[in-house]
Amino acid sequence: MILRVDRLAIELPAPEHPSPNSAAAVQELMGGRFGEMSTLMNYTFQSFNFRGRDKFRPFYDLIANIATEEFGHIELVSHTINMLLSGTTGRSTDPTNTPLEAATDFRNSYHYIASGQTSLPIDSMGAPWNGSYVFCSGNLKLDLLHNFFLECGARANKIRVYEMVDNAVAREMVGYLLVRGGVHILAYAKALEALSGVDVGKLLPIPDISNKQFPEARKHEEKGLHQILYRFSPNDYREVSRIWTGTHPEDGSTLRVVDGPPEGGRVPDHPEEPQLTAPIGPGLDQGMLKEMATRLFGKAM
Amino acid sequence: MILRVDRLAIELPAPEHPSPNSAAAVQELMGGRFGEMSTLMNYTFQSFNFRGRDKFRPFYDLIANIATEEFGHIELVSHTINMLLSGTTGRSTDPTNTPLEAATDFRNSYHYIASGQTSLPIDSMGAPWNGSYVFCSGNLKLDLLHNFFLECGARANKIRVYEMVDNAVAREMVGYLLVRGGVHILAYAKALEALSGVDVGKLLPIPDISNKQFPEARKHEEKGLHQILYRFSPNDYREVSRIWTGTHPEDGSTLRVVDGPPEGGRVPDHPEEPQLTAPIGPGLDQGMLKEMATRLFGKAM
Amino acid sequence: MILRVDRLAIELPAPEHPSPNSAAAVQELMGGRFGEMSTLMNYTFQSFNFRGRDKFRPFYDLIANIATEEFGHIELVSHTINMLLSGTTGRSTDPTNTPLEAATDFRNSYHYIASGQTSLPIDSMGAPWNGSYVFCSGNLKLDLLHNFFLECGARANKIRVYEMVDNAVAREMVGYLLVRGGVHILAYAKALEALSGVDVGKLLPIPDISNKQFPEARKHEEKGLHQILYRFSPNDYREVSRIWTGTHPEDGSTLRVVDGPPEGGRVPDHPEEPQLTAPIGPGLDQGMLKEMATRLFGKAM
Amino acid sequence: MILRVDRLAIELPAPEHPSPNSAAAVQELMGGRFGEMSTLMNYTFQSFNFRGRDKFRPFYDLIANIATEEFGHIELVSHTINMLLSGTTGRSTDPTNTPLEAATDFRNSYHYIASGQTSLPIDSMGAPWNGSYVFCSGNLKLDLLHNFFLECGARANKIRVYEMVDNAVAREMVGYLLVRGGVHILAYAKALEALSGVDVGKLLPIPDISNKQFPEARKHEEKGLHQILYRFSPNDYREVSRIWTGTHPEDGSTLRVVDGPPEGGRVPDHPEEPQLTAPIGPGLDQGMLKEMATRLFGKAM
Amino acid sequence: MILRVDRLAIELPAPEHPSPNSAAAVQELMGGRFGEMSTLMNYTFQSFNFRGRDKFRPFYDLIANIATEEFGHIELVSHTINMLLSGTTGRSTDPTNTPLEAATDFRNSYHYIASGQTSLPIDSMGAPWNGSYVFCSGNLKLDLLHNFFLECGARANKIRVYEMVDNAVAREMVGYLLVRGGVHILAYAKALEALSGVDVGKLLPIPDISNKQFPEARKHEEKGLHQILYRFSPNDYREVSRIWTGTHPEDGSTLRVVDGPPEGGRVPDHPEEPQLTAPIGPGLDQGMLKEMATRLFGKAM
Amino acid sequence: MILRVDRLAIELPAPEHPSPNSAAAVQELMGGRFGEMSTLMNYTFQSFNFRGRDKFRPFYDLIANIATEEFGHIELVSHTINMLLSGTTGRSTDPTNTPLEAATDFRNSYHYIASGQTSLPIDSMGAPWNGSYVFCSGNLKLDLLHNFFLECGARANKIRVYEMVDNAVAREMVGYLLVRGGVHILAYAKALEALSGVDVGKLLPIPDISNKQFPEARKHEEKGLHQILYRFSPNDYREVSRIWTGTHPEDGSTLRVVDGPPEGGRVPDHPEEPQLTAPIGPGLDQGMLKEMATRLFGKAM
Repeated sequence: MILRVDRLAIELPAPEHPSPNSAAAVQELMGGRFGEMSTLMNYTFQSFNFRGRDKFRPFYDLIANIATEEFGHIELVSHTINMLLSGTTGRSTDPTNTPLEAATDFRNSYHYIASGQTSLPIDSMGAPWNGSYVFCSGNLKLDLLHNFFLECGARANKIRVYEMVDNAVAREMVGYLLVRGGVHILAYAKALEALSGVDVGKLLPIPDISNKQFPEARKHEEKGLHQILYRFSPNDYREVSRIWTGTHPEDGSTLRVVDGPPEGGRVPDHPEEPQLTAPIGPGLDQGMLKEMATRLFGKAM
Repeated sequence: MILRVDRLAIELPAPEHPSPNSAAAVQELMGGRFGEMSTLMNYTFQSFNFRGRDKFRPFYDLIANIATEEFGHIELVSHTINMLLSGTTGRSTDPTNTPLEAATDFRNSYHYIASGQTSLPIDSMGAPWNGSYVFCSGNLKLDLLHNFFLECGARANKIRVYEMVDNAVAREMVGYLLVRGGVHILAYAKALEALSGVDVGKLLPIPDISNKQFPEARKHEEKGLHQILYRFSPNDYREVSRIWTGTHPEDGSTLRVVDGPPEGGRVPDHPEEPQLTAPIGPGLDQGMLKEMATRLFGKAM
Repeated sequence: MILRVDRLAIELPAPEHPSPNSAAAVQELMGGRFGEMSTLMNYTFQSFNFRGRDKFRPFYDLIANIATEEFGHIELVSHTINMLLSGTTGRSTDPTNTPLEAATDFRNSYHYIASGQTSLPIDSMGAPWNGSYVFCSGNLKLDLLHNFFLECGARANKIRVYEMVDNAVAREMVGYLLVRGGVHILAYAKALEALSGVDVGKLLPIPDISNKQFPEARKHEEKGLHQILYRFSPNDYREVSRIWTGTHPEDGSTLRVVDGPPEGGRVPDHPEEPQLTAPIGPGLDQGMLKEMATRLFGKAM
Repeated sequence: MILRVDRLAIELPAPEHPSPNSAAAVQELMGGRFGEMSTLMNYTFQSFNFRGRDKFRPFYDLIANIATEEFGHIELVSHTINMLLSGTTGRSTDPTNTPLEAATDFRNSYHYIASGQTSLPIDSMGAPWNGSYVFCSGNLKLDLLHNFFLECGARANKIRVYEMVDNAVAREMVGYLLVRGGVHILAYAKALEALSGVDVGKLLPIPDISNKQFPEARKHEEKGLHQILYRFSPNDYREVSRIWTGTHPEDGSTLRVVDGPPEGGRVPDHPEEPQLTAPIGPGLDQGMLKEMATRLFGKAM
Repeated sequence: MILRVDRLAIELPAPEHPSPNSAAAVQELMGGRFGEMSTLMNYTFQSFNFRGRDKFRPFYDLIANIATEEFGHIELVSHTINMLLSGTTGRSTDPTNTPLEAATDFRNSYHYIASGQTSLPIDSMGAPWNGSYVFCSGNLKLDLLHNFFLECGARANKIRVYEMVDNAVAREMVGYLLVRGGVHILAYAKALEALSGVDVGKLLPIPDISNKQFPEARKHEEKGLHQILYRFSPNDYREVSRIWTGTHPEDGSTLRVVDGPPEGGRVPDHPEEPQLTAPIGPGLDQGMLKEMATRLFGKAM
Repeated sequence: MILRVDRLAIELPAPEHPSPNSAAAVQELMGGRFGEMSTLMNYTFQSFNFRGRDKFRPFYDLIANIATEEFGHIELVSHTINMLLSGTTGRSTDPTNTPLEAATDFRNSYHYIASGQTSLPIDSMGAPWNGSYVFCSGNLKLDLLHNFFLECGARANKIRVYEMVDNAVAREMVGYLLVRGGVHILAYAKALEALSGVDVGKLLPIPDISNKQFPEARKHEEKGLHQILYRFSPNDYREVSRIWTGTHPEDGSTLRVVDGPPEGGRVPDHPEEPQLTAPIGPGLDQGMLKEMATRLFGKAM
């Protein structure tokens, strides 16, 4: 089971300007083969399906705990997309104004037809995320190798989206995820090392460009965020510290486990888009609405 | 962000016997269009994408909170599948024994080739769950209507899987989910009523067969579980009580919100399946393993 | 079995100008999850698969009859797309002129490579319609709830496409379909009411914006088109009148069944696009063509 | 637009016994790449998308008219599947009896979870039919060649399903479709000949086995059914006779157009399957049901 | 088994300018239903699966041999795409420069996120090629008819891409493939004729526009390339000459088999794109690189 | 370009008995995410798309050369499937005998409907291979890491299929592929080592079970087959020896490059299956056949 906290992993800055095609590009980090849906679901299923948990508890704890952090990552990507999409069309309750006209030429029409100018579990070309992206062989070494590869692939995707989009909200998100993804890469490398004795971490960085090249990542690393594995549980997954230990291969700093999630930032409030009747349209019965609001919520809406 | 608790929503009984084709059938409740992946992801995206949250807070809280409970449901379905699959093939480290021979005739070969006799995000025919199953129009009334329909469709699927599989572990899981799904159906009905004044709850049950027909559901309802909406958050989503209030349409009992998750049950330990090298194979270097175990975990594995 | 009439449900006006990306958007109403292929095929399969037809004849008749009308709707959407696409590229029999050059930048390349600048059973992003969009549980209440939801979702899609495209041909089509879809929504609401006593129609409109906001729909409603259920059969499906009866919830007007299809309009003639060799290319043997035309068709082509 | 007649193309005999896996096989003729959904939708879209209709009217009429017959073919395949599925599980309103137990081992679980033991737009492995199966290049010669090939491929599929299933209902259906498909093959061959002068019909039969090998087809041919092209329209598509003329290549008999559909047979009534709550479950409010039946249908249900 | 020769079928000219959307269009010839992946894989599987090879050797040899040529065609299409994509974004090792910014608006984002500005097995809308495009019934006549149709469909696609893209590299490639595809069409026509006596070649050209309309194809035909079937094997597939014999239906020239592949042209060298870390990024350890280069490759990289 | 040699990589023994469900399982090694289609196409596209080839020639040569060997692997898997399928149904030219009856209950109906009891590019559940399985980032380190992981995943799949199927033909094939796949794993490990200095080969074996556990693999390794990288080209890819050098990590034996393919074995002849009209049916005109055979092939067929 999980508990949810109504906070984002970081505070997201407002975008300088709405940007529909940037939002379309960022969708790759959500629903692409290497998007956050994939990391979330790969580790989640691996944790459910773990065989021999008691004997290999530190590995189980590590995978389950990283899975938990990934939920915060799909959340972060989703809100970034939403912020880039808000205001990309005309706000109007009169459909004859053709308020969505511009969307005809945008790259992702689902954002305007299927959703209310918000994120979907799809990639940058609109293809839906699917369960064949989940790898879960049951063999610990192979699953760890997969996870190591998956995180490196995800890193390549993040870097490329960073290079496509310079909107502050997107870069803030990508910068943070590069650092946290970096922690996950290293964690899986260390887990692999535990099984094989091979110093897999020496392969890093993959692709061969440092996080330090990205100011929005560098600022977090300067504060040591790359050394921290958060333990996302009130009481469980304590044996992550068996694996997340020692020093960081890049700067030799000491790795440490922090209990509980980061403090995080506010969940952004996404404004209404009346032309999409999101969340309500001009035809909602006002009397009914008022009555219900008073009765159920103790205030007018 | 979320926190994870290493507990299942309920304690799952051991299956009377392994049952590969029953496990294949139960997969529909995981990765089918009406499986728990769908309820989890629909409500999760709707919560990320909610527009006008402050004004419509109780609806946001309701959707986000139900999304959170759904994670516990994919977890429950996954462990049920795993328990049904454990022991379905011969345990052996010698591949020449053809330990997986029986699997050639089972309905789902992915359980034996892609996973280590464990669950996957696929349906009962092996088709992967995909993101096109997520509906998120942004219009509150339409999304609530969708959710009401989705839960009714999910209920129909659960009933049919119940009728296919009489293994205790599966029925215990389905019985519990029928009750919890029933809470979600009613919650969305009440939310729709708040917007429209229509007593949508009077449409229930859909399909037209009562939960009381299912002993494994009835026992929970006799304890009042159908009256409870758990609040799955340390501090947030408190306005669910604005909607989850009044009486239950079936027995007139009083609805109530309970803070925090149910106490739940132990996460079952899934035994090793050496023929699948899950979690390790006979070729793992024993010296290396011992050394690493001692160094990292402070004990021999 | 069906008979086909070479008439469209309405006369479609010529588009003011060709518009490839508008055509791409309109494809959502054809092959999207909520497009007309979905309504057509959902009700068609539900009619084939109906159990207990004699006992529940009015429901069978209703579903089968609405299915039949939907064929006219895919036809209408198709011709709208075709009219928007005609003339979007250069007409030429010389390929070295690069007559399709502009299409390189249009949103839907299938219109120019797979088809002859015409509609396909795909959505606005080019994803093909597929059979998983058909819901057919066999439970009458659940299927009716689905159909009610499907029509509401389809309505949301139509509204949004209306807001994207102001080309007269598209708006004429959408306006008509909003009215006819409104009839279907109400028909399914009344069918649900027959089973449950719940006044489902009071939930309307969903999304909460009235058809009267759309001039191209309003003009039809002013003539009472929203009160009419056409009976699309020479002799069958007469019991639709058992359900389609009483008054319209919005204006209290009397509902009525009309025998036979609407008079409709001409099927538009789509001009040849020689650069796509549609329907023939410059290399068709002229002697052969003439001879065959004379022999088979009694005239020169 | 279309009109629907509540008759099947032929009378279907009752199956000797229910046969779930035979039904699964027959699904290939519905939703496979070469199933009737494909022939229906290929010709339907080609008719919508026809360019230069006035000039090439006989070809348009032929394609539109064959499309219309194909609706009767998906109908026939659907009812065959339904008849094979009825009674394959235990009839019971008590789910604890595990009435669907046998279905756990059947080849197609969707028939028991997604539908009420009825057909779906899927193939013999459960993969959904999809719009990429529609070919519609706009070039008349290429489209006709495609249609000729498609019908030959469909013929091969029918023959193989015939060889898999000896249940009378399936063979009656396949036998009839072999003859009608044979008419379509020849019609497209003649249309190709009109454009090219090549006697394409001499390629037949493809695959190289005669319809006369199939008693259920032979009996229809002995009555001349292979000579008839039905004109499925009250008043339109009259120029089919320009192409469907001359003699049959196999037996030299004279081809002729018949106005109107065949007389056909009764639409079979599919019995209720209460364990699937199809069409209603034990929980439908009996008082409500009675009241509604009286009010709406003038009789008790 | 195969041997590979590091040569392209023809020398490809440098593109006049990079052209991302042209590259996206050309993808249809790679991964579309009628792309070269389809011709390659259809004939390859048909050759593996051939039944009765000894008796029907010339047909086997023909199919296997054409399959082999098709590998050179996916290669040619791939390099064309790569050449069109090189240089479409800014070259830079500093990601903060947003070097991929322009790609946000290009039609195919996978080229910039999934690949290093290079080809993928996808079509012009980004949909992946898939195995359902392979037709292999085992019936020789039907498979040959399919292949004849497939090649005609592929020809239509090539012609349309030619009409979309006037970049020299693309037209050189398409011109060559039109000629070679023309050889394959005729080869399958002749094989069909061998089985049926029907002069299928008289149906050509399909679509009805001559290769002579395309200067980049005409120049090859003027040199007789359309008369040659290359035998792509050191010692095998010699019986192709049983089928590839006689005269060409268009100009009466004599058909002939040439042993071995064409001389072909250089495989183009694709420049590094450092912003995509393709093939290496700025973070590759230079000392390591140098040491390895010296040790393994005997030179500095 | 490629040349094809009409030889298999090894001689395949006849299967002890036909085995339809074993064939279905073996399909995973063909068209699954980790099947031979994936290794073939991943490396093929990586070779086409290689940037900076001159500078990084040994890596290019390695990838291109391994791609070439993989063709021989899809060939081997295909013939194994075909041999397992031959004779699984009754041989008969009379369809009324229901010769395919048994196939109704087999796991893969496509083998009997879509193909002539032969292999298809699908996996063990019938899902088609698709292009999204191709990874090609352009970053050399990441692509090599991917290839290393892909080969390990493919190895796991092979082991499991070995454990499902004890038919000699399948085990002979898997045994050989385990050895050759082992060569590819090591080759990519060495390539990664060249870029990073990390002794990646020490991670092996993954999964942690030795090839020596498999007699059909062990026999090849005892002859040194695991030490050999074949160079599959008349004249190219010579720099593979820069990377494939040194000693084998498991037994310290010396690695070596062998010019040219292995001698291999005969391509098995697959018998006719007349009930599938493969390759011909009883309706092929015998006079025509004889005449054509004489004319074209110089002998009666």
